[in-house]
Amino acid sequence: MLYSQDTSRCIHPDGLSESAIAAEKARTTEAISGIRTDLADGALPALAIATDNGDLPALKEIADRYREKFTDIVVFGTGGSSLGGKCLHALAMSKGPSLHFIDNVDPASFAKLFARLPYATTGLIVISKSGGTAETLAQLNVFLQWFQNHLSAKDIAERITAIVEPGASALRQIAEAGNFTMLDHDPGIGGRYSVFSLVGALPALIAGLDVPTLRDGAAATLHHTIEMELESHPAEGAALVTAAASQIGSAINVLMLYSDQLFWFGHWYRQLWAESVGKDGHGTTPVPFMGTVDQHSQMQLYLDGPRDKLFTMVMRDCIGTGDTIDAAANGGIDLGPLEGRTLGDLLDASQRGTADALAMAGHPVRLLKIDEVNEATLGALMMHFMLETIITAHLMGVDPFDQPAVERGKVQARQYLREMAD
Amino acid sequence: MLYSQDTSRCIHPDGLSESAIAAEKARTTEAISGIRTDLADGALPALAIATDNGDLPALKEIADRYREKFTDIVVFGTGGSSLGGKCLHALAMSKGPSLHFIDNVDPASFAKLFARLPYATTGLIVISKSGGTAETLAQLNVFLQWFQNHLSAKDIAERITAIVEPGASALRQIAEAGNFTMLDHDPGIGGRYSVFSLVGALPALIAGLDVPTLRDGAAATLHHTIEMELESHPAEGAALVTAAASQIGSAINVLMLYSDQLFWFGHWYRQLWAESVGKDGHGTTPVPFMGTVDQHSQMQLYLDGPRDKLFTMVMRDCIGTGDTIDAAANGGIDLGPLEGRTLGDLLDASQRGTADALAMAGHPVRLLKIDEVNEATLGALMMHFMLETIITAHLMGVDPFDQPAVERGKVQARQYLREMAD
Repeated sequence: MLYSQDTSRCIHPDGLSESAIAAEKARTTEAISGIRTDLADGALPALAIATDNGDLPALKEIADRYREKFTDIVVFGTGGSSLGGKCLHALAMSKGPSLHFIDNVDPASFAKLFARLPYATTGLIVISKSGGTAETLAQLNVFLQWFQNHLSAKDIAERITAIVEPGASALRQIAEAGNFTMLDHDPGIGGRYSVFSLVGALPALIAGLDVPTLRDGAAATLHHTIEMELESHPAEGAALVTAAASQIGSAINVLMLYSDQLFWFGHWYRQLWAESVGKDGHGTTPVPFMGTVDQHSQMQLYLDGPRDKLFTMVMRDCIGTGDTIDAAANGGIDLGPLEGRTLGDLLDASQRGTADALAMAGHPVRLLKIDEVNEATLGALMMHFMLETIITAHLMGVDPFDQPAVERGKVQARQYLREMAD
Repeated sequence: MLYSQDTSRCIHPDGLSESAIAAEKARTTEAISGIRTDLADGALPALAIATDNGDLPALKEIADRYREKFTDIVVFGTGGSSLGGKCLHALAMSKGPSLHFIDNVDPASFAKLFARLPYATTGLIVISKSGGTAETLAQLNVFLQWFQNHLSAKDIAERITAIVEPGASALRQIAEAGNFTMLDHDPGIGGRYSVFSLVGALPALIAGLDVPTLRDGAAATLHHTIEMELESHPAEGAALVTAAASQIGSAINVLMLYSDQLFWFGHWYRQLWAESVGKDGHGTTPVPFMGTVDQHSQMQLYLDGPRDKLFTMVMRDCIGTGDTIDAAANGGIDLGPLEGRTLGDLLDASQRGTADALAMAGHPVRLLKIDEVNEATLGALMMHFMLETIITAHLMGVDPFDQPAVERGKVQARQYLREMAD
């Protein structure tokens, strides 16, 4: 396995009992069996895509062209159309074009963007599953106006790729009218589950990442879950979060991350969890936590505030990595326990110290451990959380794939836009 | 006033009653009277500094030198030493040196940093109130080694400013040994309340921001609160959040922001609130929300999940601002209600639609309104939340200025570092 899971710090006399977790775990069999059947029936393309790289050669061709021709690439999309790509892109250490993920319609940000982007060497990827997302259509429209001030229709067409599901939609019509490259978004893959599909893979390939290894990491977790059933990490995780929510009233899921490269992973998880389990009055609230800065920002509340949180920490083995602290550089001033230690040692001590302080104060802390942050481990973790989310939704009795309430704010917003036009 | 507050959407038959808020509001008099006395006694320098610009000429001199000499400026600090500066810096629209706020000790981030920073034109600001923050000392140490590989001791001294409170500390010793510029952090100003002091002001001046206007905005809110007492926005806000926590079980405070420039403001608020009210089992959990991306990520949970949240939305008047959507640019394809509207219109419709959908579903939504995002309004909002936090802590019976539990994880971390050395 590419990661391990330790839930032992969640179990103690005032907290969760082993039997409560075991009872929930016994209920996961049905969900896993459903996942197995759906996979066999081709009804879970979001997960199955991790085991099939047939789409990659065509994507690679586009990515190579983008890497060669452009210094800057703007990705328009919002929610599930941007968070997965952003999360993968954060892994990139190699040089390549700058990727800008724009998920808002703030006029100030657009003014900044137009002021600094070189139109001749800027490429665009525009993603809307439905092809009708208002923010994305508005973004594309003002960007097209900017392009049209500088470039011919042919030059513009070479700079744009649209990702949209088949069938009539505004984005598809616009892409056809403009001769943009068009890629089909699989209608069976919802936004928050789309990271392994072209929605995440195209930006990742442009960023120079190894997408087959990412998918292999995900596939390993998927196989482990299907084959191990009750003994799988996602089943155990789902049992834990469900038991914590119902037995000890954990209303908040804190995801503690100690690698800067996982910053957007926290936000990707936040959507996955919130939209999947947050319905019919159910669902805990996901909160990303970035160590070490949030140690100096949130720990007071977490240690000493209400006992309404379940903590999941993604720990990485970083002992001995990074630069070594050396008193000589300080003009000989000794830094006590820091002396001779590396940055990685300090990071390791910080994450362990935090986990232990929380557990000693009686808060439930789960540890997920990886050796390093790379495509394989990120793929494994992403698949872990997708499966844990689906299984948890099953335990809570809600549909992990719909989001019926989201439309309400949009209906209201459209009404206000219409009134402005009057 | 530089902002307005509307709590009417919090009051409805199944939610909060006007009388519940009024009862809490009556209790705020004592807290405000305490603030007034403390201000007069010089015991609240964090707030009082907003009314005194005596420190600015000296800071301006350093900022001008940094702007002239450096292309890149790294700010080391964590928690309250970085979030305020980061939050102010996000306002900057003018060109100037690039500021990098580094608040973690992730070896991967340091490798990236050293690979791209031009040592000859890089300046450093290192901030630790106590002078003993392990992360900050470790950051400084490895940075000094990098500098020492390229520069003389004299050249290094010209590139570093240390901000630390008076008295013996490792940072002060190192700064003295290295002849760095040294600025005194006021011992009476805690990290999370330090944004108006030199900790926020120096990075803001380097970013080309108008610090006197920021402080004037803050001072206006302070005066309004001291003079209006019960009728002040912070008193009403504190009454609202306390009533929501106790009457309808709001365990989570969501701060909804619709301007990209306020992204770090959400994180700054998160620390202010969490560390101040999260103790003795009290305190609600702060969650920043960034529209429009989080509309597509969190709204399902917020609308249809557990009723455990109080929503505060910072709305800005953006109707008519930004580029106009024009079907001609789309090859004539009409975008329905978007046609002829601006990006600002869409942002306005989104924020209003979201607020209304939440209120219609019976969730409490408070609106804070500003005309635009600038130094004056940001100063006013920051002071609002500082006062609201202090008053709320008083209503909850906890000390808004201490953070007794934070040390626990650190003690454990130091122990692990010592063990590594054995």
